[in-house]
Amino acid sequence: MSNTRLSSFDFEHIVKAALDEDISHGDVTTNILVLSVTTTHATIQAKQALTVAGIPVVQKIFELLDPTISLTLEHGDGDTITTGQVIASLEGCTRSILTGERVALNFLQHLSGIATLTKQFCEAVHEFPAKILDTRKTTPGLRKLEKWAVTMGGGLNHRMSLNDGILIKDNHLAILKTQGINITQACRLAKTNGPHGLRICVEIESLDDIDQALEGQADVLLLDNMTPELVHQAVTQIKGRAIVEVSGGITLTNVREFAAAGADYISIGALTHSAPAVDISLDIPFSA
Amino acid sequence: MSNTRLSSFDFEHIVKAALDEDISHGDVTTNILVLSVTTTHATIQAKQALTVAGIPVVQKIFELLDPTISLTLEHGDGDTITTGQVIASLEGCTRSILTGERVALNFLQHLSGIATLTKQFCEAVHEFPAKILDTRKTTPGLRKLEKWAVTMGGGLNHRMSLNDGILIKDNHLAILKTQGINITQACRLAKTNGPHGLRICVEIESLDDIDQALEGQADVLLLDNMTPELVHQAVTQIKGRAIVEVSGGITLTNVREFAAAGADYISIGALTHSAPAVDISLDIPFSA
Amino acid sequence: MSNTRLSSFDFEHIVKAALDEDISHGDVTTNILVLSVTTTHATIQAKQALTVAGIPVVQKIFELLDPTISLTLEHGDGDTITTGQVIASLEGCTRSILTGERVALNFLQHLSGIATLTKQFCEAVHEFPAKILDTRKTTPGLRKLEKWAVTMGGGLNHRMSLNDGILIKDNHLAILKTQGINITQACRLAKTNGPHGLRICVEIESLDDIDQALEGQADVLLLDNMTPELVHQAVTQIKGRAIVEVSGGITLTNVREFAAAGADYISIGALTHSAPAVDISLDIPFSA
Amino acid sequence: MSNTRLSSFDFEHIVKAALDEDISHGDVTTNILVLSVTTTHATIQAKQALTVAGIPVVQKIFELLDPTISLTLEHGDGDTITTGQVIASLEGCTRSILTGERVALNFLQHLSGIATLTKQFCEAVHEFPAKILDTRKTTPGLRKLEKWAVTMGGGLNHRMSLNDGILIKDNHLAILKTQGINITQACRLAKTNGPHGLRICVEIESLDDIDQALEGQADVLLLDNMTPELVHQAVTQIKGRAIVEVSGGITLTNVREFAAAGADYISIGALTHSAPAVDISLDIPFSA
Amino acid sequence: MSNTRLSSFDFEHIVKAALDEDISHGDVTTNILVLSVTTTHATIQAKQALTVAGIPVVQKIFELLDPTISLTLEHGDGDTITTGQVIASLEGCTRSILTGERVALNFLQHLSGIATLTKQFCEAVHEFPAKILDTRKTTPGLRKLEKWAVTMGGGLNHRMSLNDGILIKDNHLAILKTQGINITQACRLAKTNGPHGLRICVEIESLDDIDQALEGQADVLLLDNMTPELVHQAVTQIKGRAIVEVSGGITLTNVREFAAAGADYISIGALTHSAPAVDISLDIPFSA
Amino acid sequence: MSNTRLSSFDFEHIVKAALDEDISHGDVTTNILVLSVTTTHATIQAKQALTVAGIPVVQKIFELLDPTISLTLEHGDGDTITTGQVIASLEGCTRSILTGERVALNFLQHLSGIATLTKQFCEAVHEFPAKILDTRKTTPGLRKLEKWAVTMGGGLNHRMSLNDGILIKDNHLAILKTQGINITQACRLAKTNGPHGLRICVEIESLDDIDQALEGQADVLLLDNMTPELVHQAVTQIKGRAIVEVSGGITLTNVREFAAAGADYISIGALTHSAPAVDISLDIPFSA
Repeated sequence: MSNTRLSSFDFEHIVKAALDEDISHGDVTTNILVLSVTTTHATIQAKQALTVAGIPVVQKIFELLDPTISLTLEHGDGDTITTGQVIASLEGCTRSILTGERVALNFLQHLSGIATLTKQFCEAVHEFPAKILDTRKTTPGLRKLEKWAVTMGGGLNHRMSLNDGILIKDNHLAILKTQGINITQACRLAKTNGPHGLRICVEIESLDDIDQALEGQADVLLLDNMTPELVHQAVTQIKGRAIVEVSGGITLTNVREFAAAGADYISIGALTHSAPAVDISLDIPFSA
Repeated sequence: MSNTRLSSFDFEHIVKAALDEDISHGDVTTNILVLSVTTTHATIQAKQALTVAGIPVVQKIFELLDPTISLTLEHGDGDTITTGQVIASLEGCTRSILTGERVALNFLQHLSGIATLTKQFCEAVHEFPAKILDTRKTTPGLRKLEKWAVTMGGGLNHRMSLNDGILIKDNHLAILKTQGINITQACRLAKTNGPHGLRICVEIESLDDIDQALEGQADVLLLDNMTPELVHQAVTQIKGRAIVEVSGGITLTNVREFAAAGADYISIGALTHSAPAVDISLDIPFSA
Repeated sequence: MSNTRLSSFDFEHIVKAALDEDISHGDVTTNILVLSVTTTHATIQAKQALTVAGIPVVQKIFELLDPTISLTLEHGDGDTITTGQVIASLEGCTRSILTGERVALNFLQHLSGIATLTKQFCEAVHEFPAKILDTRKTTPGLRKLEKWAVTMGGGLNHRMSLNDGILIKDNHLAILKTQGINITQACRLAKTNGPHGLRICVEIESLDDIDQALEGQADVLLLDNMTPELVHQAVTQIKGRAIVEVSGGITLTNVREFAAAGADYISIGALTHSAPAVDISLDIPFSA
Repeated sequence: MSNTRLSSFDFEHIVKAALDEDISHGDVTTNILVLSVTTTHATIQAKQALTVAGIPVVQKIFELLDPTISLTLEHGDGDTITTGQVIASLEGCTRSILTGERVALNFLQHLSGIATLTKQFCEAVHEFPAKILDTRKTTPGLRKLEKWAVTMGGGLNHRMSLNDGILIKDNHLAILKTQGINITQACRLAKTNGPHGLRICVEIESLDDIDQALEGQADVLLLDNMTPELVHQAVTQIKGRAIVEVSGGITLTNVREFAAAGADYISIGALTHSAPAVDISLDIPFSA
Repeated sequence: MSNTRLSSFDFEHIVKAALDEDISHGDVTTNILVLSVTTTHATIQAKQALTVAGIPVVQKIFELLDPTISLTLEHGDGDTITTGQVIASLEGCTRSILTGERVALNFLQHLSGIATLTKQFCEAVHEFPAKILDTRKTTPGLRKLEKWAVTMGGGLNHRMSLNDGILIKDNHLAILKTQGINITQACRLAKTNGPHGLRICVEIESLDDIDQALEGQADVLLLDNMTPELVHQAVTQIKGRAIVEVSGGITLTNVREFAAAGADYISIGALTHSAPAVDISLDIPFSA
Repeated sequence: MSNTRLSSFDFEHIVKAALDEDISHGDVTTNILVLSVTTTHATIQAKQALTVAGIPVVQKIFELLDPTISLTLEHGDGDTITTGQVIASLEGCTRSILTGERVALNFLQHLSGIATLTKQFCEAVHEFPAKILDTRKTTPGLRKLEKWAVTMGGGLNHRMSLNDGILIKDNHLAILKTQGINITQACRLAKTNGPHGLRICVEIESLDDIDQALEGQADVLLLDNMTPELVHQAVTQIKGRAIVEVSGGITLTNVREFAAAGADYISIGALTHSAPAVDISLDIPFSA
């Protein structure tokens, strides 16, 4: 069950901006070559194995551009498909289909890229209870869509913004240290001053910090940039007295080790900031 | 010399949206732990070798968030730096610096990622006259910024939108074929109907298409998804009668071969759709 | 220490909308009677005892309308003042002062009304540890400003939006009950599915619900529409195993009883949805 | 007959802002507890006697949030109902109903609060020809909606903005006095310079001002902050030579006296700036 | 004295839209030919006799585009100048000056065109008391700017919108006639139902309508599409009992006759809907 | 075939702004005179011979204002009609029709004015191959609509923005001259630096410039402010080695001579900056 939602209300303005950005004053090539009365059939196809995300965006794009286009779905967000499978087919005004192609693919390839990478991380740890989380390292303007794509790949969403979680990070601790405030005191300060509905999460740089944090009644310990071995030691030391999240330096190669070390949550910035686009194309059959 | 520009007028709305998205109703952690009167010193540092892009965006972020923050630049867009080098330092209200950190880094890591990858492609072909171009495969909403980052890495910008270039693609040709119109005729149609200020560019799928395109007086031939060997043959066949652009399947490994084969331009979607974020951090020294 | 922030970045668009709404195509009376070169002196004065909130908004209004107006503050947000005290004085173009008067007062009277009412509630419970909270029952479009005003009156902010807290309300429980899910199970479901940074808060309608909620490891129990006597019983029953919040039917007359009954937090919708405007005027001395 | 209108074109942007403000990145509680396929039935009910206003806004909220929700109206804007009466019922996706609940109620309780208070003022003067008017003392951003609510309670709208009426107020007169211009001359100046479609209204502070204003051919005299006795004297002195409006210090207790004193119009800021929210709830029956 | 105002607050969004529309993704010609470090001197010059309007817009354009550009004014809005006179000079970054040129001239030529035409109408009637008015026949989106330009040419502004005046037009009368309501009754209905601050203006198609309108106590009679002779007859018949406005078919050739016939106001749609642009150029001296 | 497009997506925001500008807080006259339940029939009629443009905008206006209005078209964009012909008829709520009348006519009269003037220019040169082009001298905010209107009159669109064409103008050449760069070198610089999809167009002030431009391989020569005789000489000198465009001082009287002189394209700023509005009215028959 997801803690995010995707309504067209949330992304319509992004779609409009993207169409405006790409079409600008008009698709000059299509307009000079294709008569406005021509209609055609086209398919959107996977050119590699991938997990789909972004279909509601594609629907909105063609709805905004030309409500007479009919879009038939073969697959929806969250489906994992293989090379050559058709995701959707389009029928209608040729000009509109060609004009919307690039914007539709840009969204679909980017979001499915995120879903696909997330899926790979989730599968790598499937034997363990650890859950894969995203971060706030998202592309500016696309956070809701990218976090949606993460859930389509089987991941969970971490904080959506600075407002919906207390996370005491290294820079906060550095500032507080100059004022003579240690980790224990920082956690207590957060408990006293913070909204009563938020748990206290604190970043842990070394095993020495753990006891201080637990003494401050931290609810979640975020083990930052530790090796799987250190994580294992930390989990042993924590003994279930706090939730354990790990972050930093996690790759498809080593994620299983972190899960095996006992982490409850593994948060990975690369899910959203470095997932390569997957290959998807819009094709018009010659015999159309 | 670049054919794009970067004025704050162009990206201020994106920065506002990104701040709104991340800060939402407020940075709860910072507000409960750090007094509003505290000031601090922080540095933005490269954690890997990279080419910088996005500094004007970082300036705008802190200007919008808190005009009293002072930002001192050590490096600017287009500079290539190594691990550990400081890009900029910040001085001022601790709350504002911590609250703006993530948005600033999200832009800087993404845009510098694009500049860094572009630089690698440019260096790979530096012995040849071929120039590296981006495409319209950009992240929705960020086209101007991403195309700016490409130029900071030494690349050139292809079409900014569907309106500023005639590019007859495979899907256009498929449509026209069903109406009995071949490549030669398509090029002529574009010449007659198109704006008199735009050249005619046409996508070429096989060597057979080349003579048809030249007969139609195409100005640019875009060789799509060919091997370096085929490109070489095509260049020989074209004999300077048209500009040669190649696209499709270009990687850091093979780009040199395409340049060696005689392409005038090499356009690469991955520059903008798949460049991984580079590692940059904002640090507050403990002794601050 | 507040968990909200007030930067002009957050409310500039509301101020623009309010100016546009009131000025529309121009202040016809002022423009036909007062020459554009006339300057004047004016004061903003309290006509009753009140707690000030909204000064940054007033500053922004005159800055947008006419940057040459100089505004001198005698009091700032959070100050409690008495009848006749001057809050600020203005000097500059008469037309601009008269044209901005109503919008400035509309914001200042509304926000100071909220701060003033909140202050009264806070003072009523000052002998007890209970803290006064606002709710999401705010005026559409003004949530950040109204929640800011609450903190200026000494209150704390509850959830800013549906995204930054888990609060299982009566309607959620009604829905779950039809599926055979009781309070204990609902709390556990929230713990399993919810973001790991959020505590579990649950609405309690009767004393019978308390043990179920505690069994489900709820972190906060929201006692809804109970009498002070029932609250006292509930607090006794809970024995510190969860944070206690009360809500519903709280007035200036009875709030002290709820605090005395042992509530940790008292949340009051009226702070924002029913605070009457306080009386503040902008005066131009006849001898100016 | 009303001189305002309410089309969704006018308030759609406010509704969007309110939804965005409340939902932010998503209704986390509902999303983790309620499956997206669940549907339910809910009613919107009056918890006190009230006059309804805001139904078109509620319709727009659910239309934007989820067009599949069906909303059945039992009462519309302008209806006066009693405790327990159902205003509307909703049928559809449980998540959407719960997510939209608070925003819908915030609008409905605020606007119905204004209509209800206005109705009380209108009833208090129903034996007299005096009409109840609102003012420009409205909540920033909500003027059209609040003025609509006033008409639903039986009141009339005064100026919508500074542009649609000439009203020479105390501050205008103070400024003009320093230039040796008295009330008579101010009225004449307004007549000469003002748009030929607007009447001249002038604020009257004492009985002495009346003859000056009439000499200047003022069309409307606004008697400010006078007692009912003074208003009676003023009406006698004016003898039908101008329209009489009273304002300042009007309450439900004394409004009848002002009407009895012969005022044509009574304008009341509290209608919009201090009307308490009325109690309305959204309920989901346990047996749904 | 004008009943409009021109603050940058009112037109900044139009200027941004115009810059975005013209510059789109960048001034490609300037960017490839002119180095970003080049500075230059340029003048904005009248190529014909004209009355200036739009200088604040030009200032805002360059301020938004490049705040380092310095703009020195030789003439301001309302000045009437002759061929060859310099209106303003610019100094600064060559790229910015060339990029902003067209947008600046588009505003300045259009608005000065309106001021120039208005001035000609005003001069044609200068021997008579009649005043020249604009109408609501303005270019969509530019009403405030165009109405400002009218005042710069010496004209007055009629209604700014449908909200700030009661004008009973032929179509209203046609509708009312089908319900058995004549002109007298229409005027009375407007008096009873209308806001008490607005005068009653009614359109008069023939001399027969005049007495009906006067009987209904209309304040302003708008004589529509009458000859100067008929206007003269109407004025004689009205005998000062109402303000007389004429409209329809007014040209520079016949406007003097309408003024001579005794009209108080002459309203002319062509001022804003058909004023040709005046000739103004931005020149860079060769020796710069 | 047109190189522009007109989708409601492109102009909806302009229509909204125009409605907001004209209606503001409501059509007070109509609301006080016409009951909301009244319906009526109305026609939009040509009062002069004209070419229609703007029908999709009129449709959008009534759709936004009141979706229950039915609009029946007799003529569409591009149709040339005579005095008295009905363009469209409307059926529905009287208030909505009267409230939308002025905005609908403002768009329709302006855009049809442009189409009508363009048509006259096209007809004047119909014996010659020369094509009529617009320029970037458009009304701020209305470029897409105005360029659409030009195509409806039979003209072609020149550059839509500074981004979609290289046009080396007099000011560019003046700047380059101070750096010792002549026309030939400027053209070569543009070829080297410019996007490979854009042709090189250069402004020619005298016959001497022609050989320099051709030596620089300019694709298009823009003959600026020349007489038809000089254009003839230039065409002879160019001998088909470049496309010939003329501009400056073109009127309906002399345009035929320029076409006869051999120009390929004739670009005319007056099409968009000085086309007078055509006369169109909305009528409600008395017997409706």
